[in-house]
Amino acid sequence: MINEAYKKMLEGKSIIRVLSEYATARGKEIGYENVFDYSLGNPSVPCTKNYTDAVIRIHQEQDPVAVHGYSPSLGIESVRSTVAESLSRRFGVPYKTEHIFMTSGAAGAVAHAVRCVTKPGDEVLAFAPFFTEYTQYINQTGAVLKLVPANTVDFQINFEAFESMLNENVAAVLVNTPNNPSGVVYSAATLQRLADILRAKQEEYGHDIFLISDEPYREIVFAGVDAPYVSGFYDNSISCYSFSKSLSLPGERIGYLAVNPKATDADIIAVICGQISRGIGHNCPSSSVQLAMAEVIDETSDLSVYETNMNLLYDALTRIGFEVVKPGGTFYIFPKALEADANAFSMKAKKYDLILVPADNFGCPGYFRMAYCIDTEKVKRSIPVLEKFAREEYGMKF
Amino acid sequence: MINEAYKKMLEGKSIIRVLSEYATARGKEIGYENVFDYSLGNPSVPCTKNYTDAVIRIHQEQDPVAVHGYSPSLGIESVRSTVAESLSRRFGVPYKTEHIFMTSGAAGAVAHAVRCVTKPGDEVLAFAPFFTEYTQYINQTGAVLKLVPANTVDFQINFEAFESMLNENVAAVLVNTPNNPSGVVYSAATLQRLADILRAKQEEYGHDIFLISDEPYREIVFAGVDAPYVSGFYDNSISCYSFSKSLSLPGERIGYLAVNPKATDADIIAVICGQISRGIGHNCPSSSVQLAMAEVIDETSDLSVYETNMNLLYDALTRIGFEVVKPGGTFYIFPKALEADANAFSMKAKKYDLILVPADNFGCPGYFRMAYCIDTEKVKRSIPVLEKFAREEYGMKF
Repeated sequence: MINEAYKKMLEGKSIIRVLSEYATARGKEIGYENVFDYSLGNPSVPCTKNYTDAVIRIHQEQDPVAVHGYSPSLGIESVRSTVAESLSRRFGVPYKTEHIFMTSGAAGAVAHAVRCVTKPGDEVLAFAPFFTEYTQYINQTGAVLKLVPANTVDFQINFEAFESMLNENVAAVLVNTPNNPSGVVYSAATLQRLADILRAKQEEYGHDIFLISDEPYREIVFAGVDAPYVSGFYDNSISCYSFSKSLSLPGERIGYLAVNPKATDADIIAVICGQISRGIGHNCPSSSVQLAMAEVIDETSDLSVYETNMNLLYDALTRIGFEVVKPGGTFYIFPKALEADANAFSMKAKKYDLILVPADNFGCPGYFRMAYCIDTEKVKRSIPVLEKFAREEYGMKF
Repeated sequence: MINEAYKKMLEGKSIIRVLSEYATARGKEIGYENVFDYSLGNPSVPCTKNYTDAVIRIHQEQDPVAVHGYSPSLGIESVRSTVAESLSRRFGVPYKTEHIFMTSGAAGAVAHAVRCVTKPGDEVLAFAPFFTEYTQYINQTGAVLKLVPANTVDFQINFEAFESMLNENVAAVLVNTPNNPSGVVYSAATLQRLADILRAKQEEYGHDIFLISDEPYREIVFAGVDAPYVSGFYDNSISCYSFSKSLSLPGERIGYLAVNPKATDADIIAVICGQISRGIGHNCPSSSVQLAMAEVIDETSDLSVYETNMNLLYDALTRIGFEVVKPGGTFYIFPKALEADANAFSMKAKKYDLILVPADNFGCPGYFRMAYCIDTEKVKRSIPVLEKFAREEYGMKF
């Protein structure tokens, strides 16, 4: 019989997906260029030419039996070593090959990290607003996600709430900076304070608390913003990365998990992740994608469009009168809706063919997310529409 | 703290991996060409030129944002539809797109299928000799693997043992034909009898029993052997496939799960698998690999070398005096060792640089597996060594 627990999950359809499907359907009626679809976080810029060339060269020149042969379940050794070397050089944390586990994007990395450092019943704290899939990554392991309420002043951490929620059952804390959906980058002061608290609580409780850092947007940081490397602040830390956004390869499912060499059991965490993979039947990312990625490890796509779009939207939203914190990175912006019910707000926006995602599911009711990984030309055309919407529906004057 | 359950798994190192690592190390001493390494089931023939050309063409000609964009979590729709059409045409089961879920090889397919149709505590029956990773795929879901003892006469199903082990807690039965490690293909009579028993037991227990068919070797079938399609015999069936062996793409992690359209809840099983994927953080195989595979869906690599090798080894082994069932497919052969303790037998063989895997872990003590996915030239050179070993260590006369 079909497992009822999974069957029940079918009932809760993602609002992002619902709105995205609506946008696609609406696009078929009026032309997709006329739908201002801010729903999905799908990169809009191509991967680098060097990545494409690497794939082609590997397939043209190398022995197919070697290229397509089984990768070790922790990832191809030379690829892991390339990742370790790049991270050490860039961020000063002395990773070695043994600390790197190749994953199916940051999703795979976070899910493995949580399974590795928790047992069923443990609590994992994450901070609102948050990437809703964390609920799945955490709760399907048997651990329990507890959400720390948002600090809506600047979307740094709400430390008061955080400290009140810490208790002996907390096995891990999950952070995401630059943040989806707020676009905010945690400051060095935030990370320092977080690390200090965790160190004190480890001491007090007499057990490890792991800091799992989900950082697929690490390379999308805007001018003048300092984006400190999370694992530099705390020993018991695991970095979860994806090339989905930086190299625009979301469909290739390529990322990694990097264990801080100073973490407890640092030398076996990657190996344990390999054991976890056996149970879910997923052993590693595509071998050819691993090999091609390693050739362009320090490259990114041309990510400048995201900053251009952010500035256009931030200026327009503040001019219209939205309450909004300026994003430091990502391709998201997270304004407060013009009425308390962000779902109602979003439904009204739909009438203007503005697709805005209400943030109740992100743990931050009353706000909405715009994913501006779309053409700048469309962002520009959307601004008069946003203005019209705010004027007509909410009587905004500006 | 590190999850102790996973930590414990590190203790039980796979004998296949231990022997394979030994073979590699020994190869560095005496030249790998002098090590008769029958340990690993890694395909020895290249993928087809058409596959390579498809990858190159897709990367040269198509829009990278589309090629590398997020695949829906069930797989790219056009690819799923291509799979459904190919299976329907070839095997007469009327699959539609909605019945196909793209996976990370057959491993991902089996692990998802088990999670989908069992709940913690349920029993899953599999048949010895068996692919040892089933233990992980099943037990990590919370269900419990129960192993039906082998029928060592012909390595079809031991029905007497099977029927005695069926009980109300059995939620699924897992078969693997052509079989790793025996090389045997289940006959139509075997599958018919299996299906009849399951139908009767479903009736008796008043609940579904799913038949999960792991078939990565489906296309490696030797002359004169009939390899019936498992899902053709039983409605509540799920086919688990991989292109690892047929297209020699094990590192690409590409396969699928196909739900029999007549199964209970056939229209939602693939969707449920998508939900399961969310929890393990693995959403689908590489998008570009999906697209390239779909262009060569009905092709296989030149698999003839496996039959050539099988015939050479089968003739040699029977001539020497081994008790061995002739394989009908795969690239494995599964003789009885020349002493009761197959581990001791295997250790003695190592002295001759013959790497033979003892089958205790496959649920069939006293037997050993040879994976003959190696060059025919090496198989030929190994035969006098096998003869010498059998003569010197066991006094075999032939």
